[in-house]
Amino acid sequence: MPPLTGPKSGDALFGSVERVNAELFTLTYGAIVRQLLTDLEEVEEVNKQLDQMGYNIGTQLVDEFLAKSNVSRCVDFKETADVIAKLGFKMFLGVTATVTNWDAEGTSCSFVLEDNPLVDFVELPDTCQGLQYCNVLSGVIRGALEMVSMKTEVTWVRDMLRGDDAYEMRVKLTKQVPEEYPYKDDD
Amino acid sequence: MPPLTGPKSGDALFGSVERVNAELFTLTYGAIVRQLLTDLEEVEEVNKQLDQMGYNIGTQLVDEFLAKSNVSRCVDFKETADVIAKLGFKMFLGVTATVTNWDAEGTSCSFVLEDNPLVDFVELPDTCQGLQYCNVLSGVIRGALEMVSMKTEVTWVRDMLRGDDAYEMRVKLTKQVPEEYPYKDDD
Repeated sequence: MPPLTGPKSGDALFGSVERVNAELFTLTYGAIVRQLLTDLEEVEEVNKQLDQMGYNIGTQLVDEFLAKSNVSRCVDFKETADVIAKLGFKMFLGVTATVTNWDAEGTSCSFVLEDNPLVDFVELPDTCQGLQYCNVLSGVIRGALEMVSMKTEVTWVRDMLRGDDAYEMRVKLTKQVPEEYPYKDDD
Repeated sequence: MPPLTGPKSGDALFGSVERVNAELFTLTYGAIVRQLLTDLEEVEEVNKQLDQMGYNIGTQLVDEFLAKSNVSRCVDFKETADVIAKLGFKMFLGVTATVTNWDAEGTSCSFVLEDNPLVDFVELPDTCQGLQYCNVLSGVIRGALEMVSMKTEVTWVRDMLRGDDAYEMRVKLTKQVPEEYPYKDDD
């Protein structure tokens, strides 16, 4: 039987985990991006690496999330998106996202972030205009969802570093693998 | 005149800054190290890059530290080392360090860390035995101290990832440039 306790609130969850200074994190992430720009020559290649790095991180973070949040099975992609926006972002970055722009089928939506700790103090030089600085975040979402059997494509549609008024990533569910549980429902 | 309020406690300081989840930080740092190991062939080269990355971060973090900690001028290297151990580590990583093993001249000491958020879940594969995984931290110390006119050499002498019983970095003051203040003491 799934646990009977409900999920924690985002604030309680954020309060319950070990934390480090956000500026240290921001500067460390900035150092990775700078390093990749130096090592790889194509901005497009840097975008791919950041996404892959995020994917790897996401596949690992999902365990901590499930262990600490008391979230049990989500009934569908909509509920999953809400949990990520309200609890996932809060638990890891200390901010919440808004879920919006659902398509008719309920398989695509947007996460909108107004506050994004990743980009404090960041300005893109003219030579980096194609850089998708926050690709690590979209990679994290993709990696974490894949671990709960949802294959997705995640792309940035608005980016304040490129002059937009918010950060918006589009998440499209492409395939959902039915989960097999080690217990039967009538146990 | 320097501010009359005393420095904040480490806990108050850590409570007053924006924070993110420590596991996210740990995994992000792990992703950098993995990336560098892939891109650069020599472990020695990776060690250098991590140190340089830390140096760059340290030169920027020192501003946030001075702005938020209410720490005013330290009288000497000894006091500076204590402030870093008790307030600096706490503010950024949420842990404190012990200052020990002073030499007779008061120009070399060790920071000992028993808890190190950087290395949670990390194991070094046999192929990486020369890797100084935490070089970013020694780089941060070197960079931050250089911003307050203290040139140092910082090296790791104990490392739990290599089987030691603690993390110990040795900090040696090599040159202290007298600071010039924009005000006169009798103002």
